[in-house]
Amino acid sequence: MSAEHPAHGAPFNVGLLGHGTVGGAFAELLPARAGEIAELTGREPRLTGVLRRSSGDYREILDGADAIVELIGGVDPAREYVLAALLSGRHVITANKLLLSQHGEELFAAAEKGGAQLLFEAAVAGVVPVIKVLEQSLAGSHIDRVHGIVNGTTNFILSEMARGLSYAEALAEAQSKGFAEADPSDDVSGRDAAAKMAILARLAFGVPVHLDQVPYEGIEQLQGDDLAYARELGLGLKLVGTAERRDGGLSVRVHPAFLYSGHPLASIAGSFNAVTVESDAITEITMSGPGAGGPQTASAVLSDVVSAILPPAGRRAPVRRLPLVADIQSAFYVHMDVADRPGVLAAVTQALGEHGVSIKSVVQRGMGERARLVMVTHPVVESSMRAAVAQVAEFQFVRSAPRTIRVIEEEFV
Amino acid sequence: MSAEHPAHGAPFNVGLLGHGTVGGAFAELLPARAGEIAELTGREPRLTGVLRRSSGDYREILDGADAIVELIGGVDPAREYVLAALLSGRHVITANKLLLSQHGEELFAAAEKGGAQLLFEAAVAGVVPVIKVLEQSLAGSHIDRVHGIVNGTTNFILSEMARGLSYAEALAEAQSKGFAEADPSDDVSGRDAAAKMAILARLAFGVPVHLDQVPYEGIEQLQGDDLAYARELGLGLKLVGTAERRDGGLSVRVHPAFLYSGHPLASIAGSFNAVTVESDAITEITMSGPGAGGPQTASAVLSDVVSAILPPAGRRAPVRRLPLVADIQSAFYVHMDVADRPGVLAAVTQALGEHGVSIKSVVQRGMGERARLVMVTHPVVESSMRAAVAQVAEFQFVRSAPRTIRVIEEEFV
Repeated sequence: MSAEHPAHGAPFNVGLLGHGTVGGAFAELLPARAGEIAELTGREPRLTGVLRRSSGDYREILDGADAIVELIGGVDPAREYVLAALLSGRHVITANKLLLSQHGEELFAAAEKGGAQLLFEAAVAGVVPVIKVLEQSLAGSHIDRVHGIVNGTTNFILSEMARGLSYAEALAEAQSKGFAEADPSDDVSGRDAAAKMAILARLAFGVPVHLDQVPYEGIEQLQGDDLAYARELGLGLKLVGTAERRDGGLSVRVHPAFLYSGHPLASIAGSFNAVTVESDAITEITMSGPGAGGPQTASAVLSDVVSAILPPAGRRAPVRRLPLVADIQSAFYVHMDVADRPGVLAAVTQALGEHGVSIKSVVQRGMGERARLVMVTHPVVESSMRAAVAQVAEFQFVRSAPRTIRVIEEEFV
Repeated sequence: MSAEHPAHGAPFNVGLLGHGTVGGAFAELLPARAGEIAELTGREPRLTGVLRRSSGDYREILDGADAIVELIGGVDPAREYVLAALLSGRHVITANKLLLSQHGEELFAAAEKGGAQLLFEAAVAGVVPVIKVLEQSLAGSHIDRVHGIVNGTTNFILSEMARGLSYAEALAEAQSKGFAEADPSDDVSGRDAAAKMAILARLAFGVPVHLDQVPYEGIEQLQGDDLAYARELGLGLKLVGTAERRDGGLSVRVHPAFLYSGHPLASIAGSFNAVTVESDAITEITMSGPGAGGPQTASAVLSDVVSAILPPAGRRAPVRRLPLVADIQSAFYVHMDVADRPGVLAAVTQALGEHGVSIKSVVQRGMGERARLVMVTHPVVESSMRAAVAQVAEFQFVRSAPRTIRVIEEEFV
């Protein structure tokens, strides 16, 4: 370095595992920012080894590294590599949400045992610093709820459907723009978002949550006219992940949900991600930004490299015990194809009422044998809603299985 | 503490200066959260002294404290108290934006000399953790621009004006709801926002910026019909603080500005605050939440208490040199009262064109002697715009001084 720069300590050696979209972007970004990071931290980060599919030796890379950046993805062999690094005292920076949501506790234990940091800002919401904000700024807060749009692919598809495209057209559009994989099932099924919500729940509530404990529904079944009717009711449709205190426990889940237009997540468009954190003391804060993209994710990885060089003094949230609860209350949008005969609305509302479902607003459309009845309900326990809908589906005037989508009410301010 | 909790170190003694709205809320919040903070950090924070207007001895409070929480506000005697604490090695947590924006460098130097932390998350955007995000998550980023809605009073007033209220009515509404002081001049003049932008610019760009170096314009001169015409052009009106790299230097400023509806700050309503950070690598991230309120600000103060107990390893951004630039390019909205005669539009556009001002869109309204001509221009250097408007004002058919308001273009995706 030139004489203008402050004195430096030893270089900080980074071993990179994986050289795909994010790995490649990181390998470009690191040398470009190394000088400024050296100014800030006193140590200049440099890439000392890269493990590609076809070349590189992990043992050799590990031996020469102060920190390992894991961007292979998937569980095997990433798990083995990350564990070996942590146990040997090397810091690990990873964007691997599947690994963290399935083996997080094992990895945290290895990090503690090895005296190393496990950093994963890039695993959730890309460049949006939701991990550090939960770990640090909100460490002393009593968080009540986290809502997230944490999958950019599905948010892009839903944004396009809101413009009038069908699901199939919107998916094709996402694929042609590189926002969706050729096999999009991990995204559109909600599984990717579920993994991220498991990670956020661990940080926000201190409760270990495994991906298998997060029920998820995707967007494959959504119909364009759900979005059209919803607009009439002043609602927007998003794939929302939720982690919240409920009934003395914790509920973590992912499903499509309607949001009132004033909700801070309602305006998140295209492939952006956003996370809202609510508590009594803070009311709510929302963070948003690009959820993916090589350079953006690489930038989040690099911010963790800076943290690895200068660790925030070993703060680690204690593990808490909160039961995971499943059958919770939600408001619902209900869409029914019905024959428009006298007494239909009365029969439906009575059937719903028998299960404790009360109706907040109704839109009825069309006439004759192909009318549509769209309702938004007040909050009701999900199992009651399912039972009510099953009863309604039995009516002879109901033309096809009713569709339900949860509605997120504006509960704050 | 009970035997279930991990072993604790010594209590962490906090001296509180000031017991107004925020101080009182903090004095309630601290004991309520002390147990969880002890679990997290190993030290239980406790209030060991309070300096009120009428009681308390500063020397005594300081002697018994590990950290001082300064919530008096204003420069004197806060400056003296904070300097004494830092030089004696006590951490200081403050929400005092006037002090930081006028004496920041002196305070940072005292903190370094005393080996103490100076923490001020609550000074900007209340509970929105923009300070820690800039200091930590974005520490390795090359930031290009920061936009902020950092004054909740003015954002509330503008939100009410957007609903049709006059400035005077909206101000009265803000005062009756406790969002504006009896003397609102610090807020509505833009001075409060300017102090906060000086602080954000220091963190984002490493450049010391004094409040006196931040030009600011307030909202007192805005007219209800500016908002009405702007709606026709698809724009919303906000008081926006900006700190950005421009022409090889740094521009920091506060003024009313129109935002296109897709801009992430356009949907920030009521007394909320929001900050958007842009850079090539991250594209942009936006953080929003309540900008003020006793419990919210107290919560931000408390998060700094946690940081004081467990410091992020002494990261302090180096000081950089970037000249402050003043005469920058902006797009403008221009509002003119004109007599509707043949040749008026031609004369105006020619006069503007002579100064390099080109027009993007025009709305003309009314007829006869009281027509209104509203334009949005392409970006132009501010001094050229002022010269062009001065020339237009000379025309005999112009009925009153033209009004100009800057327009923030959507420059990112």
